[in-house]
Formats: sequence, C-alpha cells, structure tokens
Amino acid sequence: MQKLPIGTNATGSRAESDSMGQIEVPAAHYWGAQTQRSLLHFSIGTAADRMPAGIPHAFGYVKKAAALVNARAGRLDQAKAEAIAAAADEVISGALDDEFPLFVWQTGSGTQTNMNANEVIANRASQLLGGKIGAGRLVHPNDDVNMAQSSNDTFPTAMHVAAVLELRHRTIPSLEALTAAIEDKARLWADVVKIGRTHLQDAVPLTVGQEWSGWARQMRDALANLERSIDGLLELAAGGTAVGTGLNAPAGFAEAIAEEIATLAGQPFRTAPNKFAALGGLDAMVAGMAGLRGVAVALLKIANDIRWLASGPRCGLGELTLPENEPGSSIMPGKVNPTQCEAMVMVCTQVLGEDAAVAFAGSQGQLNLNVMRPVIIMNFLRSARILGDAAGTFRRYTIEGTELNRARIAELLDRSLMLVTALAPVIGYDKAAKIAHKAHVEGSTLREAALASGWIDGPAFDEAVRPELMVGPMPAI
Amino acid sequence: MQKLPIGTNATGSRAESDSMGQIEVPAAHYWGAQTQRSLLHFSIGTAADRMPAGIPHAFGYVKKAAALVNARAGRLDQAKAEAIAAAADEVISGALDDEFPLFVWQTGSGTQTNMNANEVIANRASQLLGGKIGAGRLVHPNDDVNMAQSSNDTFPTAMHVAAVLELRHRTIPSLEALTAAIEDKARLWADVVKIGRTHLQDAVPLTVGQEWSGWARQMRDALANLERSIDGLLELAAGGTAVGTGLNAPAGFAEAIAEEIATLAGQPFRTAPNKFAALGGLDAMVAGMAGLRGVAVALLKIANDIRWLASGPRCGLGELTLPENEPGSSIMPGKVNPTQCEAMVMVCTQVLGEDAAVAFAGSQGQLNLNVMRPVIIMNFLRSARILGDAAGTFRRYTIEGTELNRARIAELLDRSLMLVTALAPVIGYDKAAKIAHKAHVEGSTLREAALASGWIDGPAFDEAVRPELMVGPMPAI
Amino acid sequence: MQKLPIGTNATGSRAESDSMGQIEVPAAHYWGAQTQRSLLHFSIGTAADRMPAGIPHAFGYVKKAAALVNARAGRLDQAKAEAIAAAADEVISGALDDEFPLFVWQTGSGTQTNMNANEVIANRASQLLGGKIGAGRLVHPNDDVNMAQSSNDTFPTAMHVAAVLELRHRTIPSLEALTAAIEDKARLWADVVKIGRTHLQDAVPLTVGQEWSGWARQMRDALANLERSIDGLLELAAGGTAVGTGLNAPAGFAEAIAEEIATLAGQPFRTAPNKFAALGGLDAMVAGMAGLRGVAVALLKIANDIRWLASGPRCGLGELTLPENEPGSSIMPGKVNPTQCEAMVMVCTQVLGEDAAVAFAGSQGQLNLNVMRPVIIMNFLRSARILGDAAGTFRRYTIEGTELNRARIAELLDRSLMLVTALAPVIGYDKAAKIAHKAHVEGSTLREAALASGWIDGPAFDEAVRPELMVGPMPAI
Amino acid sequence: MQKLPIGTNATGSRAESDSMGQIEVPAAHYWGAQTQRSLLHFSIGTAADRMPAGIPHAFGYVKKAAALVNARAGRLDQAKAEAIAAAADEVISGALDDEFPLFVWQTGSGTQTNMNANEVIANRASQLLGGKIGAGRLVHPNDDVNMAQSSNDTFPTAMHVAAVLELRHRTIPSLEALTAAIEDKARLWADVVKIGRTHLQDAVPLTVGQEWSGWARQMRDALANLERSIDGLLELAAGGTAVGTGLNAPAGFAEAIAEEIATLAGQPFRTAPNKFAALGGLDAMVAGMAGLRGVAVALLKIANDIRWLASGPRCGLGELTLPENEPGSSIMPGKVNPTQCEAMVMVCTQVLGEDAAVAFAGSQGQLNLNVMRPVIIMNFLRSARILGDAAGTFRRYTIEGTELNRARIAELLDRSLMLVTALAPVIGYDKAAKIAHKAHVEGSTLREAALASGWIDGPAFDEAVRPELMVGPMPAI
Repeated sequence: MQKLPIGTNATGSRAESDSMGQIEVPAAHYWGAQTQRSLLHFSIGTAADRMPAGIPHAFGYVKKAAALVNARAGRLDQAKAEAIAAAADEVISGALDDEFPLFVWQTGSGTQTNMNANEVIANRASQLLGGKIGAGRLVHPNDDVNMAQSSNDTFPTAMHVAAVLELRHRTIPSLEALTAAIEDKARLWADVVKIGRTHLQDAVPLTVGQEWSGWARQMRDALANLERSIDGLLELAAGGTAVGTGLNAPAGFAEAIAEEIATLAGQPFRTAPNKFAALGGLDAMVAGMAGLRGVAVALLKIANDIRWLASGPRCGLGELTLPENEPGSSIMPGKVNPTQCEAMVMVCTQVLGEDAAVAFAGSQGQLNLNVMRPVIIMNFLRSARILGDAAGTFRRYTIEGTELNRARIAELLDRSLMLVTALAPVIGYDKAAKIAHKAHVEGSTLREAALASGWIDGPAFDEAVRPELMVGPMPAI
Repeated sequence: MQKLPIGTNATGSRAESDSMGQIEVPAAHYWGAQTQRSLLHFSIGTAADRMPAGIPHAFGYVKKAAALVNARAGRLDQAKAEAIAAAADEVISGALDDEFPLFVWQTGSGTQTNMNANEVIANRASQLLGGKIGAGRLVHPNDDVNMAQSSNDTFPTAMHVAAVLELRHRTIPSLEALTAAIEDKARLWADVVKIGRTHLQDAVPLTVGQEWSGWARQMRDALANLERSIDGLLELAAGGTAVGTGLNAPAGFAEAIAEEIATLAGQPFRTAPNKFAALGGLDAMVAGMAGLRGVAVALLKIANDIRWLASGPRCGLGELTLPENEPGSSIMPGKVNPTQCEAMVMVCTQVLGEDAAVAFAGSQGQLNLNVMRPVIIMNFLRSARILGDAAGTFRRYTIEGTELNRARIAELLDRSLMLVTALAPVIGYDKAAKIAHKAHVEGSTLREAALASGWIDGPAFDEAVRPELMVGPMPAI
Repeated sequence: MQKLPIGTNATGSRAESDSMGQIEVPAAHYWGAQTQRSLLHFSIGTAADRMPAGIPHAFGYVKKAAALVNARAGRLDQAKAEAIAAAADEVISGALDDEFPLFVWQTGSGTQTNMNANEVIANRASQLLGGKIGAGRLVHPNDDVNMAQSSNDTFPTAMHVAAVLELRHRTIPSLEALTAAIEDKARLWADVVKIGRTHLQDAVPLTVGQEWSGWARQMRDALANLERSIDGLLELAAGGTAVGTGLNAPAGFAEAIAEEIATLAGQPFRTAPNKFAALGGLDAMVAGMAGLRGVAVALLKIANDIRWLASGPRCGLGELTLPENEPGSSIMPGKVNPTQCEAMVMVCTQVLGEDAAVAFAGSQGQLNLNVMRPVIIMNFLRSARILGDAAGTFRRYTIEGTELNRARIAELLDRSLMLVTALAPVIGYDKAAKIAHKAHVEGSTLREAALASGWIDGPAFDEAVRPELMVGPMPAI
Repeated sequence: MQKLPIGTNATGSRAESDSMGQIEVPAAHYWGAQTQRSLLHFSIGTAADRMPAGIPHAFGYVKKAAALVNARAGRLDQAKAEAIAAAADEVISGALDDEFPLFVWQTGSGTQTNMNANEVIANRASQLLGGKIGAGRLVHPNDDVNMAQSSNDTFPTAMHVAAVLELRHRTIPSLEALTAAIEDKARLWADVVKIGRTHLQDAVPLTVGQEWSGWARQMRDALANLERSIDGLLELAAGGTAVGTGLNAPAGFAEAIAEEIATLAGQPFRTAPNKFAALGGLDAMVAGMAGLRGVAVALLKIANDIRWLASGPRCGLGELTLPENEPGSSIMPGKVNPTQCEAMVMVCTQVLGEDAAVAFAGSQGQLNLNVMRPVIIMNFLRSARILGDAAGTFRRYTIEGTELNRARIAELLDRSLMLVTALAPVIGYDKAAKIAHKAHVEGSTLREAALASGWIDGPAFDEAVRPELMVGPMPAI
C-alpha cells in the first residue's frame, strides 16, 4: 500500500456504474454511481440539509472495523483490508468530508449514505493499492467494503457511534464546564443575602449562592440523565444485516464488529441483544434525545433567570451585571443586552422542536425497518452540537464574567416588606402587620416605618431583622 | 308522539343485541349493545377521557337533519322521523348527556359514538312513539336513525359541527370580550408615558396605551386568523358514507343534509366538495387548531408581560397593580400573586401541546379513512373551551381590575438614563454622554447629574427632556 | 377521637373565612374559604379539567406525614395529629374525592389545592374530635394541617408522590403484563417462518417469533428507561418551604417527613438534596414524562405493525387474525377492525402531545418557583393512566387473542421472489436472476419458474430453498 | 459611482472599529467590527447554523428601499444613496452571500445580522464611490445605511420579506406543480375501479381517480390556507424603530419604505398598522408556519398512502408501481424502495418539529421585543425550502412516473368479499350473507361461492355485481 496524498488528480467526469448501469460522476471526487444518483434525485435543501459530518466519520469506524474482522476471519484479503482501513482512517479524520455531499432527505434507511461510504472508501483504497478509481478498481464497494453488512444494520450502527462520540467528546465536556462555572459562582456568593421571588412577587430571602446552587443542581441532574441515556446508544445493530436475522453475516460477526468498533472508537460499545428491535425501532435515539431535551429545559430556566436578574440597568431587577461583549448603546451606559442568554434560549427552543421531530420519527418504524433514520440523526447531532457550543460561549462570555450589583441587591432586600415576619416574635403579629401596612402605604422602608411607629427602636430592629438568619444552610455542591 | 319525561323507569339490566348477539345493558339507560361493548372493551382513563359533550350534541343535529331529509324524500316514515327529531332535540339540549358514557379512546373512526347516538335516539324515539326500549323497539338504530349514513361520514360531520358551535358560541365571544377589555385599557392609558424595555433592558419611552394597543392588536390578528380557519370547518362530510363514494346514500342527500344542518344549527354549513378528502383527512380540524394555537401564542405573551409588569411590590417592575382575588400574604401587604396570569399561561401551554397532538394525528390518515378522529376532536374542543373560559376569568379578575402604579411608572421613567438622547441636540452628544455616564456611576438621576454638570439648568433640562414628545402617535384601535 | 361516617349533615351554606374575610361555602362540603374563592375565580373547563384524584391522595400522605412528624417533635398536639392523620387516611382512600373540586387551571404553585387539602382535613379532623366545621373548628388549616409547610414545597412533593404511585401501582404493572403477553406470543411462534418487509417491500425471511421478540424488546427497553426515570421522582421538596431555605420548618423536618412519607406510601422517597432546584424546577417530572413518552413511541410502532399485519381480510397483508370484539360488517365475514390498535395509537399520540406541553412547562420556571405545576402533573398523571389502561385493554382484547393466518403466511413466503438468493449457490447467480425475472414477469411463483426453466427439478429446488435456514437464531427473551 | 468587480483585493486583516473600540477583521471581507465580534462570541454550530441566505437578500431590499426613501426626502446624499442601492442590489443577487457568515444563534433581535448588512453595504458602497473600506469610508454603516431604522424594526421586516419571497418564488410554485401532477393522475385513472380500505380493512369500492382526487383536494385546501397565511406577512414593521413609537424615523417613513420595498420586491407589502405588536410579537410568522405545517400534514398522508399502495411486489398491496430511480435488489426484480416517499415523510416530520419550535418561540416575546427572531426565521425558511424542494423531486421522480398495476387492482377487487352487498337486492340478504361466509371459509372468490351455492348463475352474478356502479361520480378537480 502506497502513501498517497488525497486527490484523484482528475477533472471532468468519469463513468461509474451500478446495477442500473453507467452514470457520469465528477472525476475530481471519489464517490461512485449510487452517490451520484442520490445527488440527482434528492436535491432537497441547502448546506443546512447535508448529512452531518459525524455520520461519515462514524462510518469510517464501522467500515474499518468490518474490514479488520473480515480479514482476521480470512474472508477478506489482508492487503485489501489494510487499504480499506487506511481509507477509513482518512474518513474518520475528516480529510474526506467533501466526499460526502448527500442530503439527509434521501432514502429513510440511509442506504445512499452507506453506499457513499462504500464507494469513497473502495475508490480511495484501490488508489492506495495502486489500482484504478471507478471501473476496474481493486476494491469493491459492496463485496469488500460492505462485506457482511447491510445499510439496514450499518446505518443505525453509525448513528449510535456518531451520537456517543459527539456527546462524549463535545457536548458533555462543554456542559460540565458550564456547570462547574455556575458552581464556582454559587460558592463565591454563598453568603450574599438577597430577596427571594415566587410568582415573580417578593418573597422571603435566600442567598445568591443558594440561588445559583439550584441552577447547578438542575444541570447536574440533567447531565446525570443524559449520561444514563448513553447506555442504550452503546448497543450496535451491526450483524443484523437486512432484517435482523443476520443473513449473510457469519456467526459471531455481530459481537466481533461491536468489539472492534469499541476498541477503535474508545467507547464501550456492545452488540445489541435483539437486532429486530435495533432495525425496526430507534428507541435509544429517542431516549438520548430526551436526555438532551432535559438539558435544554434546565438551561432555558437558567438563561431566562439570568437575563431577568440582569434586567435594567435602572428599570429592571438589576441584581446581576453581565459582561459587555458587544456594543450596547453608545450614549447610554450600563445597557448590556443579554445576548448570550438570548442565544441560549433560542438554542434550547430549537432542541425542544427537534426533540418533538425525533420522537415522532422514532414512532414511525414500519414492520422490520424504521426508515426515518436520517432525520433522527440529523436532529440529534445538531441538538447535541448547538447545546454544547452554546454552553461554551454562555460560560465564557456570560457566566464567568457575571458580577453582582451588591448595592442593588442590598437595596432591594432593605426595601422589601417580607422581612416583617422577623418582627412578629418581638412585638407581636398585629403590630408587625401594622408596620408593614404603614410602610406599604407610605412607600417607606420597613425600618423607617418601624421606627416611626415607636414600638421598636433602631438597635432592636436591627437585632430582630437579620435576613442572614432567615436563609438556612448552603446545600452541598 | 307522546310527551314523556326522560327516563326508562327501569332498574337492573335489559338485554340488547347487535350482530354479535345479546348483551346486558343497564336498564336505567337508553344505550344499546354496541355502546355497552365499547364500555367493556375501552375502559381507558377517567372522567377526563369521556367523549366531550359537544360531540353528542352535534350528533343530535346530524341525526335530526338526516331524519328530516329522509322523511321529506319519503324514505323514512313521518312519525318515526318526528320521534327521531324529538329525541335528537333532547340530545342537543344536553338533557341526555348521561347517555353518552364512552371514552375517546375507542375505535378511531368514532363508530362507537355514532352507534351510541343511534341507539339512544332509537330507544328514546321508540319510547316517545309508545313503543319499547330494546328488543321490539319501533325505531331501528341502523335502519332508521343511521339511514343513508355511515360512521365514516357522520363522525367527521359531527366534529365540524361541534367545533364551529363551540367557537361561535363560546370561545370567540369570550376572546372578543377580553380583547375589548384590553382595548379599553389602551384607550384609557393612551397618554401615560412609561419606559420601554427591549432585551429586558431599559429602552426609549412609549405610552402604556401603546403597549396595551400592541397586545390588543395581537389578539385582533389572532381572532381574524381563527375566524378564517372556521371556513374549512363549514364543509361537511355527510353523504360520503363509507369511503366517500356516497354508496347507499341517495343522490342529493349530501347537499340536503348539509343544508338542513345549517338551518338547524344556524351556521352556514355546506357539503364538502370532495368526500374522499373529507374522510381520508381531517385537515380543516388541523387548520382550526392552528387558529386556536395562534390565540394561545398571543395570550402567552400578554399574560407573561402582565405578570412581569406587576412584579413586586417592592423588588420587581411594579408598574401594574393587579386585583387581589385570593388571600396573598396575611402579614405582607401588596403581595398579589398573578394567579390569573399563571392559569392563562398554563392553559396556553396546554393548547400548544394539544396542537402538536392534533397535527400529528391529522397526518396519520390511512388510505380511505383517518382513524384518529376522537383524539383530534377531544383536543380541539378542550383547547377551545379552556381558552374561552380562561379568557373570561382573565378579563373579569385581572384585566378589568388592573390599575396603574403611576408613581412607580413616573419614577422609573425619571430614573432611566435613556432620556439622555433628548439632551444631545441641546448640549451636544459628548456632553450628554458624559452626563449619562456620571449619572450611571453615581447612581443619580439624569436630571441630578445634568444640573450638577453645570452645562444646563433645571428649566432648560425640563424643556429639553420631555418624554411625552418621544412616543409618537397612538395607533388606531 | 370519634368514629364518624363521612358527611357534614348540613345543607345550604355556611360562612368560612380567610384573610380576605368571609365567604359562603356549600354546607354539605368540608372545604373552606380559599377553595371556594378558587372555584369562583377559576371556573375554567369541564370535568376533564379537575385536578386529578392522584393529587389529593398524595396530599393525604403529605399531611399525615407532617402531622406525625410534628407531633413526634412536640410541635403539634397529639390528639390533633391523630385526627389529622385519620382525616388524611380518608383522603388517601378516595372517600373524600368529592371534596376536591378545583380546576387545574388555577394558581401555578398549586396553592389553592394545598389549601383545599388543608381546609378539608382541618374540618374533618375537627369533626372527628367532636368539634365544629368552619368557624370555631378545633383544627386550623394553616397552623395545624400546614404546619412547617408551604404550598411551594408540598405541592411538588405531592406531585412526585402521585406520579410514583401511579407508575408503580398501575402503569408499570399493566405495561409489564402487556410485554409478557407479547413475549408469550414470540415464544409460541418462534419457528413460524414469514416474509420480512423493509421499506414496506418484500425482504428476506424471519420468523414470526423474531418479529414479536423485537416488539417485546422495545417494550423492555422502554420499561427500563421508565424505571430509571422514577429515581428523580423519589426526591421530595418538602422542608424547603417558601423559597427553598426551609424558613419556618424546624431543622431535620425535611428528612423526617420524607422518611415518614416513604413509610406510609411504601416507596423509597428521600429528601431532595437541593430544595432551590426542587422549587424552581420540575425537571424530574419532565424526565419522567420522557420515560412515558418512550413507552408511547414503542407502542405506536407495535400497534401500527399489528394493524397492518392484520389488514385484509382479502386485500391486505392478512398475516394476523385479530379477535373480534365488536360487530364488524354484518354481511361481510372476516372484516375485523383493529379498534384496540386504533385506541392505542390515539393514546400514544396524546402522550406525545402531552409530553411536549410538559417539557415546555418544565422550562418555564421563574426565579425561585416554577408556577406551571398543575399543568405538568395533570398531563403526567393522565398519560400514565391512559397508557396503563390502554395497555390493559390492548393485551386482553388484542394481543392475547391474536391468531396467525398460517396459510396466508406460507402463501406469501412461497410467492415471494426474495428466496431466489438461496438458488444462487446451486445454479449460479445469473441463472437464479433469470428465474426470478421470469417469475416476476409471468406472475408465477419462484418454484414454478424454476421448474419451468429446466435448470433445477422439484426436489433440488425444495432442498435448496429452505427459508427456515435463512432466519438465524431466536433472540433471548 | 464606479463599476467595480466585487472584492477587496486585500489579504491579511484590517482594523475596524465600533463603539467598543478596534478589532481586526479579515481584509478579504467587507464586514466590519460588529460582525467580527459576533463571529467571536457566537461560534455555535456548523454550516447548518448560518443565517439562511434569504435574510441577507431581504436586507438588501430593506436597505435599498431605505436609501431611496431617505434620499428622496433629502435626508441622505443622493450619491451615497445610489451607492448603497448598488451594493444592496449585489446583496439581493446573492453575489455577496459569503459576506454574511453569522450564526443564527446570536442576539435574539437579529441586531448582529442587521449590522452585518450595514457594514457590508457601507464598505462596498464606499468602494463603489471610490472611497476606502473600513476606517475613513465614505458611507457610514449606522448613520447612512441604517438611517431611520433600528434592528428592532428592520429585522422583522426582513423576516417577512424573506418569507414571502421564498413562498412565492419557490415553495408555492413547486407545491402547485405537484398538485397539478396528482390531479393529472386523478383524471387519467378516473374510471379504474379498485377496492376501498377503511381501518386498513377491505371496504366498498371507489376509483383510483377518486382516491387521487382526495389527495389533490387536500393539497388544494392546504395551499389555499398557506396563501391566506401570507396576508399577515405582508405587513412590515419598518418605521417602528426601537420600541414601535418610530422615534428617530421621520413622519411617513413607515409607509414610504413599505411602498418602496413592495415595488422593489414585487409583492404587495404594506406598513403594519400597529408597530408595538409588530415588534413585541411575531404572530404572522407563527401563522405562516401553520400554513406550511398544513401542507406537511397533507403530504405525510399522501406519501404514506403511496408507499403502502406500492408495497410488494409480491407480499404487499401492490396496486401502484413506482418508478425505479436507484438500484434496488440486483437479483430480485420488482423491489422498488419508495425512497421519494421516505424523503417526503422525513421532510414533513421535520416541518412538524420546526413548527413546534416556531410556535413556542413566537409565544416568548417579552415586553416591547420578541428576541426569538433568528430561530423563527431559520425554521420558517428551512421548512419552506425543504417542502418546496421535496415536492419537486417527489413529483418528478415518483408521481409523474407512477403506474397502475391494473391486474393486481382487478384481482383484489375480484377477490374482495365486500361486493356481496350488491347481491342482497337480488337473492336476499340472508343468502347473500351465506355466500360471503362460504367464500370466506373456503378462501374462494365471491363469484365462485355464489355459483357453487346454486342460488345464482354466472350471467346473473355478473349482471348484479358491477363494482363500477358502486363508486359514484368523480368529484370536480
């Protein structure tokens, strides 16, 4: 096998053929006849509608693993297997991303993308072996690259591989970092007492740290649920071939390829215990999507809370000061639009919509195949990606730089009438209520009204009304 | 035909039969064998899962219209027709509601509810004619009450009738009254200048009336869309019988029954131009649901805005004072939970969820029949009902009694720095910006900072900074 | 404490009062002023919109547990505590269901339902102690029944308790029984070879048992996910009181009441580690709903498959024969409408819509409280209930009675051309393809075309084409 | 103004500045400081997450119209206006698409994309005027290009323009062509009698043309609803500026710019009657999305029906023969996967999910601004695009080439027992039922059983059982 830079060194077109006959494909590309036909018949959408790159990468693992297993069993020539593995490595690396031009709106089994992978890898492997691209190539897309496989079992295998790798390598680390940043703030502000708000109405006090600890806990719980949802995604359909019976795959192939993929991808994949369920349904994808949706639900709340707490600068709640990343008003200082919160809220809203699409699609399997696969993996990978990326920018450009407006927090606490509850044990409920009423009517603070009442003096008031004693312990983080 | 009070005057059970044979039904009830079998086989859920009363009422119109048309054409004995019509009138009035016990989770064509109507009306009509209930009755559920009809065409007919009547008699009037109440407030407060808020940040001023006019306009637009969506619901499937061909219905029956229903129900119903679409799809229901959903989208925004504007009393925005309908805090005055807003937000959220269910169900027709009918009409009628009812309580217990906290509105406007833009033409942009910056840093008002700067005096400031000149005209209401 | 039958023995109205003053309530009922005010202000919807009974029952556990814990700590008089516990037991039993008339469309914190529970239990407990109902009662709704609690922490506690009990006692057992019934069929028909179908097109064979094993596995996986989602629901908010700080609840109350509820309800409830998350969010409910949705996704596929496989009798797939529960066509034998499948598909569609509403509502917490609680628990309990009930009727009236049409299954298998793949190794690929082509063109069976070709004789054909060798092993069930 | 090819003829970076100071931007590009900051802070997602090109194109119309109106009123230098118009024309043409690199996940007001347009047009216009790009340019992004505008009113204006143009130029024509193709088939096959199917069970006959006419009617109704939903999109927010009051826009500007945009874009745009609604809500977008969703609901049904009717070739319904666009099975003739149907079903499912996201987002406006704009327009434009494109491929590669399997249709009709209803009037109901029963039990055709019964002979049977008399008239198309 030669070391050859990627590229066909050809222009114009070349003839490729499949069981329907010949078709011209662009000679600069590695793909073959079936990819070309799909491009012709399924030109639906824009760049946003291309199969996400995670799927070709995952097919790289699947095809390499299949070649290694087949070679080990003596079914596939060793040299061919090595060339397939080398080409697959290039696919995994992303170096061949431009060779995967298909739209997600294609056959619902993902056959055309599986053939895209088979064709590209066959041509590239043939080239690496010193052979031709196209007619006369040394490696066959079906007989060699697709050996012991079917689109019906490899596509869902690639879906699970792509989903797990995206979650493990990108989404979860980013969400973890965001959560840690929230926890840092919770610890930092553990003792800053502030007014609580329920029904959007003033309520009894808590600390800023307690408030942030609640957000952190929501994130931790959501992450734990997301982690749990990965388990089902570790089960691979490969070995089930066309309908789940494994026809044309040798005994033990399912277990062997799952083990090989696990080794190559560094994740504990295993063969699915029931291939009929794995082909007819995509329930683990739906459950994984629910895991992502759970994160979105928590983040929607957090981002909404933060932008409200930062509302102002003069006519809102004004407790938080967000970092200013873009120009606000040039003449009006202090107006910082909560743009990262807005982006996050939009991302989470999108995840909710995509979750609805995935659940519906997951329910629409028919008999021995679910043919809603591309739409499911597209939404899953996108939701995973934008949640992870948005968590990163939200952390860097909002959470980490958020400051407290301590004067405002103290002012609101001081101004609130809820602290009156602390007076009742000292001067009795009725007098306390009268003081609160007086403050309410007159627009004064509770302290002012209390002192004016003559029922209590300043030192006694300050001794009685100590919000820091009303907040309880900081929860463990 | 006799005048007889409703009631079988029987206890225990009686035998009823259908093509599967005999079955015991409770003798106190008018329903027959097929209703009883459905109760047996489809006991799914609680009181919340019964077929909504609007459907039996609508079947009353359908069955009465069919009887009148059939009698007029000489196909049905006149006395029978009159008895059927009399029984149907009782169904329409709600007096026989307890005779419709079936769950929505039944056959997707609604056949069991159609038979429920046929059986109840047949038995009651027979009784009115002096005949028996059950075996030996003078009126036959299928041959007489269901003459020239099929469940396949009458159920969607009843769905459209029920939907239109609910919208016309209940939902839309209530939404109109709410909108008018919002418009009243908009007019009332047309001149009260307040601070605007975009991105939740302080922005240039507008009037309270303008703000409310925006809500009113959203409601007007949503109502117009809802009105438009009724048009498709006026088309009736009746006359299509089993598959849309009208087999077993005489020529002209479709037109005649639609005209008769229109007369009886007082709405301009007409026969659907294509019965195959009317049986295979339920697209007008989906479009009508989108009309309801549009109202919910507007109301979600309005209710959210109002509860935020009423947040406080001390630590929120505090511009609006909501009526206090229930006890708030006994010791803390001024804490009024926005409970009607909360109920409205929950109602609208439910409508969004039910809309999703209806759209999905609407897409799941199969060949010559959509068998998702009960779930669609249940959600439609419920959404229409709770939107209408919540609009009523929201109007009475929140909108009409809402007051402005004018002092707070003025204070916020005064405190805002956004008005600095009005100084620039007078003292120049740079000085204006410096004044705003000084006010921001020192926490003073713009006026205080301006006077302290020495660049402008009080009268000049008050002459320049006139928020009422920054708000533009009130839109037409 | 006396043993007294339930009932106030009064008619007309009596005055009840709360902090807003007096109000007349129906004397025949135990509820008090705040319940009555809610009825007045929140008359939204029909019987379908009442708070589901599971919530009052769960409040029974909460109130009893609180009374026991408070009495044990000496905060509550022992006799009062016993009376409260006795009244709460009646609530738990359902005997007082009629005393909980409120609509779900009320305050989003569920305060009115909490007060409903406090008022009913206080009046009934007072009665049991020989005291009055209403003014002068021996047990106070707030001071005694609600001691150390707030609506803000008890309502989400009741939500979790109600959800877990519904799942454990009703939904999951019913789903387990359905799954077991599917597994029974899978085992029964493990060896019946049939044609596979992918893309709805004829594919290679599998066994009926394998097909059913796939459905069973989908159910097992969905049940496992649902089980896992219960874990978060075991965490209780009680002890957090108004904003999560536990103000007004004694130290240790949170742990003690959770333990007591666990004992009373027989489920391993524990106190939530972070009460700020437990009050501000409802994420465990959203995750639990995703668990239910996962079951719905699997059941949608199963019910759809079954009705298609039973389509016919003459012009469909016709492989399955469903039990005939209701009259089909009186003149046309064999037409059995798949009504249970239709009900199941509608139920699952509803669950998907309710899941969307719950996810949206779960995301809408604001600052220290999520006020979308009633809409969330209503949808959760309903979805759990109708899924469970429909699983029961689906099992009893469809799965258990389903039979194979073995002749039809054999005919289709025989007629299929997919078996041609088994001829290739014997007579070569080209001849095999020609035989298939001939059969396709002539409309003959593969066997007929093969024999007509002269390339193979009957015994050789039968030796080569043995579908039972193409199906692979039965997966473990 | 010079004629200059597009391009900066620069490499490396150049300094651009905004109110936050200087920042380096790639010198090869026209965009400025605020675009660059957005790229830095909002790198969220992949190519699928870029602002769809329709938005820059629409901004081209908005900026050109504003320049023309401002120049006409003497507010803007004529030469500048011409240069802005020329640059805007290039934006409209798509020639500057690469200059709009921002992600949709940005500030929810779309400010960054508005500034992207302002910056690109300012630099390009300056270049056209012979001036510099960047510092010292002859045209100012804010003062000139954004004159009398705000992001708050121009972004929703661009949304409406983009939506209407996509619908008018692409989506609707494609849907119309598909509908016409379905209607062609309906006419072509108006007289081919086939078996009907309700509940997936054999039912009374209809014609193929009638069945297709139902689909065509669903499409026509959905298109009419979509058309109606365009009306609200014709109302433009421009002129409302920051909060709807029109501050900083001259009197009459709103009307003038709407008229100008209408002229330039060739669509009857008009100024929105209430700018507060137009900024605070996006309800017309939600209604337009419901229009698209209505099309998806109809197409889901149609595509599902077609793939089921084409199921087989031997073991399905087999009434339709779809064109073979891609390789099926190389050895098994007649297996044509319904890949276009699958793509269509996935597209429609996606539209349903995106509709849910849009409705949610539409409800989340806050006070004087809805900051969910980018997510709404992204989903709208994508749904419009993929529906339109998929309608095109579905028409070309499935509908137009679909053929009837007339032999199969006749065979199924002949085999069905439903035709027995036609015997009843001749030999009586009981004998007819007995014949059907005999045929059912024996697996014979109705004709065979009838003749075997001796109650009717061949000619009499053929005279009585004439399915073509059972189908009723063809509806108007």
